[in-house]
Amino acid sequence: MQRLDPLYPTCPIRNVIDRMSDKWSLLILSTLNQNGIMRYKELNSAIPDISQKMLSSTLKRLEADKLINRKMYPEIPPRVEYSLTNTGQKLMPAVGMMVDWALEYFDEITK
Amino acid sequence: MQRLDPLYPTCPIRNVIDRMSDKWSLLILSTLNQNGIMRYKELNSAIPDISQKMLSSTLKRLEADKLINRKMYPEIPPRVEYSLTNTGQKLMPAVGMMVDWALEYFDEITK
Repeated sequence: MQRLDPLYPTCPIRNVIDRMSDKWSLLILSTLNQNGIMRYKELNSAIPDISQKMLSSTLKRLEADKLINRKMYPEIPPRVEYSLTNTGQKLMPAVGMMVDWALEYFDEITK
Repeated sequence: MQRLDPLYPTCPIRNVIDRMSDKWSLLILSTLNQNGIMRYKELNSAIPDISQKMLSSTLKRLEADKLINRKMYPEIPPRVEYSLTNTGQKLMPAVGMMVDWALEYFDEITK
């Protein structure tokens, strides 16, 4: 994975924010964290307003960044399951704190 | 501030992720957290690869979301200073955890 911040290629913060800062990454990671192992269709049902194209490309990117596992079972039709990697799980406490903050300050922020 | 998720207007998580999930918001908030009060030009120097247009619009949005204060001093030329609000400060522990995670897993993710 060589997609690095052009100005600060060695800055961890920049390169991580860049990976997380799209509309869907944190939502997909949170959904997997709540549900454990999920099939593609289950993810799509849990996040009904994501397009199939966007869901597929975000899953691919999260897999390339080693935040999620993708396991394909050679069945007909093929079954594909997603889950958090250890690295992805380690991010969840921070995401949880952000969610707690969201719950606490939602009214104030959206007023 | 009535900019809400169209499908889940009452979901705190959706509406907060939506506010944070652009390339610059977390970087600006982190920079203000590290430096306290900053003038516009200081912010621009600290984040040299943000365009003036993007910096201005992101600051406006963060101010509208009550995450940062904007204080203008009637001097010539006018002096404008930015700082985190109490709500913005309350988000920083979560951001800090995310940064710690970034520092720990940077090598693995970017390999």
